[in-house]
Amino acid sequence: MKKIIVLNGPNLNLLGTREPEKYGSSTLADVETLCIDTAKRLGFDVEFLQSNHEGPLIDKIQEAGLAHRAGTVQGIVFNPGAYTHTSVALHDAIAAMSGLPVIEVHISNVHAREAFRHHSYISPVAAGIVIGFGIQGYALAMEGLAQKS
Amino acid sequence: MKKIIVLNGPNLNLLGTREPEKYGSSTLADVETLCIDTAKRLGFDVEFLQSNHEGPLIDKIQEAGLAHRAGTVQGIVFNPGAYTHTSVALHDAIAAMSGLPVIEVHISNVHAREAFRHHSYISPVAAGIVIGFGIQGYALAMEGLAQKS
Amino acid sequence: MKKIIVLNGPNLNLLGTREPEKYGSSTLADVETLCIDTAKRLGFDVEFLQSNHEGPLIDKIQEAGLAHRAGTVQGIVFNPGAYTHTSVALHDAIAAMSGLPVIEVHISNVHAREAFRHHSYISPVAAGIVIGFGIQGYALAMEGLAQKS
Amino acid sequence: MKKIIVLNGPNLNLLGTREPEKYGSSTLADVETLCIDTAKRLGFDVEFLQSNHEGPLIDKIQEAGLAHRAGTVQGIVFNPGAYTHTSVALHDAIAAMSGLPVIEVHISNVHAREAFRHHSYISPVAAGIVIGFGIQGYALAMEGLAQKS
Amino acid sequence: MKKIIVLNGPNLNLLGTREPEKYGSSTLADVETLCIDTAKRLGFDVEFLQSNHEGPLIDKIQEAGLAHRAGTVQGIVFNPGAYTHTSVALHDAIAAMSGLPVIEVHISNVHAREAFRHHSYISPVAAGIVIGFGIQGYALAMEGLAQKS
Amino acid sequence: MKKIIVLNGPNLNLLGTREPEKYGSSTLADVETLCIDTAKRLGFDVEFLQSNHEGPLIDKIQEAGLAHRAGTVQGIVFNPGAYTHTSVALHDAIAAMSGLPVIEVHISNVHAREAFRHHSYISPVAAGIVIGFGIQGYALAMEGLAQKS
Amino acid sequence: MKKIIVLNGPNLNLLGTREPEKYGSSTLADVETLCIDTAKRLGFDVEFLQSNHEGPLIDKIQEAGLAHRAGTVQGIVFNPGAYTHTSVALHDAIAAMSGLPVIEVHISNVHAREAFRHHSYISPVAAGIVIGFGIQGYALAMEGLAQKS
Amino acid sequence: MKKIIVLNGPNLNLLGTREPEKYGSSTLADVETLCIDTAKRLGFDVEFLQSNHEGPLIDKIQEAGLAHRAGTVQGIVFNPGAYTHTSVALHDAIAAMSGLPVIEVHISNVHAREAFRHHSYISPVAAGIVIGFGIQGYALAMEGLAQKS
Amino acid sequence: MKKIIVLNGPNLNLLGTREPEKYGSSTLADVETLCIDTAKRLGFDVEFLQSNHEGPLIDKIQEAGLAHRAGTVQGIVFNPGAYTHTSVALHDAIAAMSGLPVIEVHISNVHAREAFRHHSYISPVAAGIVIGFGIQGYALAMEGLAQKS
Amino acid sequence: MKKIIVLNGPNLNLLGTREPEKYGSSTLADVETLCIDTAKRLGFDVEFLQSNHEGPLIDKIQEAGLAHRAGTVQGIVFNPGAYTHTSVALHDAIAAMSGLPVIEVHISNVHAREAFRHHSYISPVAAGIVIGFGIQGYALAMEGLAQKS
Amino acid sequence: MKKIIVLNGPNLNLLGTREPEKYGSSTLADVETLCIDTAKRLGFDVEFLQSNHEGPLIDKIQEAGLAHRAGTVQGIVFNPGAYTHTSVALHDAIAAMSGLPVIEVHISNVHAREAFRHHSYISPVAAGIVIGFGIQGYALAMEGLAQKS
Amino acid sequence: MKKIIVLNGPNLNLLGTREPEKYGSSTLADVETLCIDTAKRLGFDVEFLQSNHEGPLIDKIQEAGLAHRAGTVQGIVFNPGAYTHTSVALHDAIAAMSGLPVIEVHISNVHAREAFRHHSYISPVAAGIVIGFGIQGYALAMEGLAQKS
Repeated sequence: MKKIIVLNGPNLNLLGTREPEKYGSSTLADVETLCIDTAKRLGFDVEFLQSNHEGPLIDKIQEAGLAHRAGTVQGIVFNPGAYTHTSVALHDAIAAMSGLPVIEVHISNVHAREAFRHHSYISPVAAGIVIGFGIQGYALAMEGLAQKS
Repeated sequence: MKKIIVLNGPNLNLLGTREPEKYGSSTLADVETLCIDTAKRLGFDVEFLQSNHEGPLIDKIQEAGLAHRAGTVQGIVFNPGAYTHTSVALHDAIAAMSGLPVIEVHISNVHAREAFRHHSYISPVAAGIVIGFGIQGYALAMEGLAQKS
Repeated sequence: MKKIIVLNGPNLNLLGTREPEKYGSSTLADVETLCIDTAKRLGFDVEFLQSNHEGPLIDKIQEAGLAHRAGTVQGIVFNPGAYTHTSVALHDAIAAMSGLPVIEVHISNVHAREAFRHHSYISPVAAGIVIGFGIQGYALAMEGLAQKS
Repeated sequence: MKKIIVLNGPNLNLLGTREPEKYGSSTLADVETLCIDTAKRLGFDVEFLQSNHEGPLIDKIQEAGLAHRAGTVQGIVFNPGAYTHTSVALHDAIAAMSGLPVIEVHISNVHAREAFRHHSYISPVAAGIVIGFGIQGYALAMEGLAQKS
Repeated sequence: MKKIIVLNGPNLNLLGTREPEKYGSSTLADVETLCIDTAKRLGFDVEFLQSNHEGPLIDKIQEAGLAHRAGTVQGIVFNPGAYTHTSVALHDAIAAMSGLPVIEVHISNVHAREAFRHHSYISPVAAGIVIGFGIQGYALAMEGLAQKS
Repeated sequence: MKKIIVLNGPNLNLLGTREPEKYGSSTLADVETLCIDTAKRLGFDVEFLQSNHEGPLIDKIQEAGLAHRAGTVQGIVFNPGAYTHTSVALHDAIAAMSGLPVIEVHISNVHAREAFRHHSYISPVAAGIVIGFGIQGYALAMEGLAQKS
Repeated sequence: MKKIIVLNGPNLNLLGTREPEKYGSSTLADVETLCIDTAKRLGFDVEFLQSNHEGPLIDKIQEAGLAHRAGTVQGIVFNPGAYTHTSVALHDAIAAMSGLPVIEVHISNVHAREAFRHHSYISPVAAGIVIGFGIQGYALAMEGLAQKS
Repeated sequence: MKKIIVLNGPNLNLLGTREPEKYGSSTLADVETLCIDTAKRLGFDVEFLQSNHEGPLIDKIQEAGLAHRAGTVQGIVFNPGAYTHTSVALHDAIAAMSGLPVIEVHISNVHAREAFRHHSYISPVAAGIVIGFGIQGYALAMEGLAQKS
Repeated sequence: MKKIIVLNGPNLNLLGTREPEKYGSSTLADVETLCIDTAKRLGFDVEFLQSNHEGPLIDKIQEAGLAHRAGTVQGIVFNPGAYTHTSVALHDAIAAMSGLPVIEVHISNVHAREAFRHHSYISPVAAGIVIGFGIQGYALAMEGLAQKS
Repeated sequence: MKKIIVLNGPNLNLLGTREPEKYGSSTLADVETLCIDTAKRLGFDVEFLQSNHEGPLIDKIQEAGLAHRAGTVQGIVFNPGAYTHTSVALHDAIAAMSGLPVIEVHISNVHAREAFRHHSYISPVAAGIVIGFGIQGYALAMEGLAQKS
Repeated sequence: MKKIIVLNGPNLNLLGTREPEKYGSSTLADVETLCIDTAKRLGFDVEFLQSNHEGPLIDKIQEAGLAHRAGTVQGIVFNPGAYTHTSVALHDAIAAMSGLPVIEVHISNVHAREAFRHHSYISPVAAGIVIGFGIQGYALAMEGLAQKS
Repeated sequence: MKKIIVLNGPNLNLLGTREPEKYGSSTLADVETLCIDTAKRLGFDVEFLQSNHEGPLIDKIQEAGLAHRAGTVQGIVFNPGAYTHTSVALHDAIAAMSGLPVIEVHISNVHAREAFRHHSYISPVAAGIVIGFGIQGYALAMEGLAQKS
């Protein structure tokens, strides 16, 4: 079975405790349960990484890109958190792994928040974008990813 | 059965013939077929409106808002086309119908195109946003909408 | 008796139901009653048009301009709603009908809201501007208009 | 009888002699006569202050705010002149006196003039705004103020 | 005989009465006479549409695009009026009808007027641009269009 | 016979060899042949100057302005090349020669290219502008110039 | 004993009554008591000036600068209120009195408020900046000032 | 004998002691001596005002404007100091006194300093501008003013 | 005893050797000694972390937030160094740990340096800000933090 | 006798015939007569260069710089015309000739004209600036230059 | 023998596989071979570090700075990859190690790519910059570095 | 032997005398000696042109482009001086001569100087860029050019 990588950026380990009026009360564990269920339904394995550090996220994207070329990874569901708005390095990692589909997910509606959250360095190289559905967005992203050839 | 309104803005009647390298070769009829199938699967009716005119789109959102309060409409799946970037009036119509969930859909990845397509007047009042999945985005949007209480 | 045209732009048909904390609980019917009473007191007839469509508003301004030259219309009280911020075409229609006084009205204080509401294409060609008095602003605008020669 | 304070900022003492093509030929004395008549009709006393100095205008707003809480002042009709565009201190004085209604008046249509006149620090904290009616704007502002509870 | 479509946007029905110091004293009827004469000389039929509404202009461009593919329309001479500066939808309609030559015409020199008239959403997708020749610009545009293969 | 001056700015001597996908394969000699034929048809003499230097272009405009006052020159057809975007001095030369009609020509559609080509210092003082018709634009410009009184 | 000057700008006389959710319920008298206590503890005299007028604040800074050179003044603790954001004259007064340490204080966190409060003309010439500690900020500023040689 | 008013804005009383590397070591008294000598040579009386307060400067300009109309004042030599960059009120005072020539003077070269010193609200309404000649600039300004009719 | 966390960002390990004209000659060890002394005086424990890596700083803020909820940590004194200007992730970490007071410290006056140092992502979520007091700023920050309830 | 170089940039040869409402009716010959008279009075020789070409102006500044070092040239009075706003090369030429005083002159008040005339590349390296005195500005500039050591 | 440090930032480990049309087909190993050969020719040792993490790059620059002071390191050849455009921390690390020469290298011509790649935080503190020579740029950078004293 | 053209723009003839703290004390003659030596070592002839005029630089680039196609010129080493920042015409000349490699050289580090020196019109069309190595940069540029096929 091919694998879907679910990548979460900085502060997403705090899900459920962090500003619940913006991010809801589900925890990162709830996200993982939801993803495992969805992956099962869609016929995929799933692997998780959350990191507050930019470097390991870059490393994982590179690793996933190679695995995708080898046919063992379907793609990435990626919530880059705050790095969405500042990381050219993540943009470049995705661009470098051409062919690897990366679906960008945001739990809250970033466009209804501060202006600096309206720009994403990830979007121009994303294969799809899902915003504002709460943690259900991860499931939608996986469905969308499943259909990317 | 509750209804989902699928609203398409200017030039989307051209789908399939218009710049297929950007929008794919599926037609608006294909979108409708996909939406009918998805609605059936999710237990909803579906109603379509495509218009090149801003006014009828505003009218339909207002009408849907009232129906939503009456419990007969689940929400709107809305591809506003070019009005995404210029219509404060559509923004206001959605804001005025508070409680009515509107899912914004774009077939292509607008963030990988011209700068004037990076700003959306609809996003800040959208209940969810789905970008760049081709016409499959309509199905994902309907699924997301189905789960909005 | 000369006529005053009271023109209302997109979403103003929702008055009273739309975000009452911003626009108050009076309806468009209440506005019309207030305008009829004010017109009577000032010695004018009154005619109403509300439209969610940009085109009919342009048409009506042109028609009013011709009637003004013919001496049967005193001027326009115009709440352009969202078109305030986006319509060069309405700006041009008013500029084209030189001599026709158009009073711009906003119910809420647009300068205390989102930045995109701070710019008006109508203001530079308005004969007067009345902002933030709730629906009483229509009555003030009519009084101001009555004194324009 | 409650009092309405009519406040005029820098250079408004020159009214009638200053650029009459922009400001008309009425003098500040004419404004005062008009305000006295209007106040009488509306059942208010009226008090005037014109100053070319920013400080006394701030002082007077503070004083009016206290009197308003004491129930002896209805509010302020304020033509801030050039301070409209530069004075955060006047903005703060009005914001600090919360509850005190201040109506901003401009004799000419500031939006049809230089770009630096299009922004007002007063507008976001004004209870109403009246622009472009010549000195009649003071009377309209007083009427609007009279209806503020 | 192939047809040339002459499309005029908002307020151009006022030609001759509207600000003659900017637009001259010729009327829209004069424009049509000039276009008919020019078309005859060049061996084309001609069809006219003027509209103050954005929607019908989009519809007509789409219709013309199909006819152009069918070989019955040579192209469009288009004076978009105020929509020049605000309509992404018209831009998209022209882009969608790839191959259809659209010549943008402005009667006055828009670059010698307000800053907001210096940007055109139509220009990047126009097959040619003719500005500032008064109504003779329509004739020049038709000649230029006649030579587009 | 009156003369039309055809002025070409920097790098236009390279026409035909320079980026033919943008500028076509016609050479500057082809432009001159076309202009001579067109001038003959319209009843004018024609004089050419191409220069990569800003100074001689300014000199020639001044000379043409004097000749125009003397009644021996009809006006200028001017493709300023790159100086379009940087030369206030050429702007001033044309403004100084008030009455002298200068038609600005661009072979390619500058508005479909880099952002720095969207602004022209020449346009605000041009008597007419012709863009995007290939070298046929010179002929259209001459026709338009011939009708300038 | 050397003296510390505590300078307060416009509207700070309102402390305690003005928007207590932003500025707290302490009054200017409370600030003065706190400053007297702190000065005593640090071995300084203290002098107060609050003014709504820009001029007296400039005068006092100049006077303090001379006294500082004479060795009788330690420096200034300065809350410039709204003049923070608009007064180049206060900037210049401090710059002119080179050597005189001026500590800028803000009671509320100006960086969490409106954008126009994020820029300070005082900061580049301040010897230290203390923001967001409520009125305790005055005491911290005095301590910091006491250690400036 | 007609009078020339020499007006100095905020912090210019510090001349000679303030940042001598920017403003030189001459004092305001030196400026006055220079102005008296120059006035004598040119056949004028001279009157001085320096103020750190914006209001008195406005008052003096208004007073000078009236005296100019009465034929007793030749004009103003004005170094507005920091108010150069922030005072719309001074701009308006000068504009209001149309006909009164005001020569703007700066001792140092403001264009070689901070960016916020590059914009002047006074320049657009000045009858002449003299910058960067040290205190000799006052004498040059008086000579230039003497020749204004 | 509650603990105060003293957090230092990138390059602050170089203190004393790095550009001493900007940062002074005290070393990070001196800062720690000062903090230990101050903590002792105020009745707190103190813990240090300096890191050139963004990730560990985020981790530590999260850890401190949990400890603060548990009542064992008073808050953070944080000099974010260069991450001040670029890190949305640190902003989000602080915002996520709502209730945890973070005092932002800068040794030098960042507002007197390059423009890119004038904006801070940390300030809007800081409980207090202390700038420009050299290393004494850490002590002032600790005092301010001690008084936060 | 030392020499003063009077340098005039593009289009200044047209003085008197060019837009006399902006530049007056004096010719360049009048300027030269005025300069010769003024130079005689001040005890200097004078040399003139007017050029529409940027290169010769740079050459002349370099030449003057060397002569200034040799003690035979006092400095330059320079009206750079349109190159004021676009020429970094002239800026660099003056900066390179450090010590050579260059007085920038403008006949009209450039700050009362188009926005692109408000910025000067020459001003930051000028030894003095004289604007808006008509051709008398050349005489004032020479006086100011005469006093530069 | 002194050492040259060759530092490579994020995603440069992908060289040869990543977008070869932009970066060429040489790998990071090829770069290292080239650098070893060049170092040998120039008489230096060479040490390599590639990291996708910002922190280790900062650490290495600090370490190199100390070694440079000790005379064992000649300097750094640094391709900062995406951190070029976002890292103030790397800028500060280089600035802090004053005296240590850092040569910035980019393989592709960043100025011919996206706008966000045109700004570098590294350039203002670089001792030299080499752009667009493919991997040969490393060799040129080493030669340039070898000549820095 | 193929030839390398070494092109120097405005004010570079002053090298050695011009602001030596920025440009060093080597003269243009030193540059030429260095280039001759380097060319000899690399097996090329070398030809020099320095001009303060934009036109001759354009002419020379065109000439070099033709010679490059004829196989007699290897490419250009170009220090465009101030024209770097203002000349679209030089940009176009290089773009027009497609295939001709042009290496852009700057002696000083332009990114550590005024903001207007940070943008280059030459860079996007350069085959390589070498900045900040003093005159050694010419030698590095020649080496880089020698390897361009």
